[in-house]
Amino acid sequence: MKYERLERAVVDQNLAAMSEWKLGADGISISKSFKFRNFVEAFSFMTEAALAAEKFDHHPEWFNVYSRVDVTLSTHDAGGLTEQDFRLAKAMDKAATRRAS
Amino acid sequence: MKYERLERAVVDQNLAAMSEWKLGADGISISKSFKFRNFVEAFSFMTEAALAAEKFDHHPEWFNVYSRVDVTLSTHDAGGLTEQDFRLAKAMDKAATRRAS
Repeated sequence: MKYERLERAVVDQNLAAMSEWKLGADGISISKSFKFRNFVEAFSFMTEAALAAEKFDHHPEWFNVYSRVDVTLSTHDAGGLTEQDFRLAKAMDKAATRRAS
Repeated sequence: MKYERLERAVVDQNLAAMSEWKLGADGISISKSFKFRNFVEAFSFMTEAALAAEKFDHHPEWFNVYSRVDVTLSTHDAGGLTEQDFRLAKAMDKAATRRAS
């Protein structure tokens, strides 16, 4: 399924309803830095997020060092942000909440 | 257990015996980019590497996008490279070999 690039107003609306996700300087990606208690919690979060990513067939760019996971989401095929990005972002927030420090 | 920073000659010797690991420009880290068939194989590699990292109590800095995993290893407490870095690097190479494309 092909997802359409979202209008900027819809992107802003989505971001306003979420916590700590920021629009990239390029305007075509969103990012968030997740912090956990330790590596096990961080990687456990990544595992839950990876299952969601594979299910949605939409994958993150992410960096991990010990208890921190920096995530960037974008839909390259659409040249910007789509519903897929916000769907994965919300799944990640949910996974992070379960491991809240 | 405290690991001692390795002499440069020992670092070079270790690197010479390994495949594709490169010494960072800073001289205190080693890096390698792993490539897999898809996200599932890449994340499966990361999972095996995460278990080794936790077992060794020595964790990577790593970036993943789809089928690629870029890894950087260093021992911050020692201000450079220690046996721990090469131990984890070898475990990662072994994990990657099992998923060779």
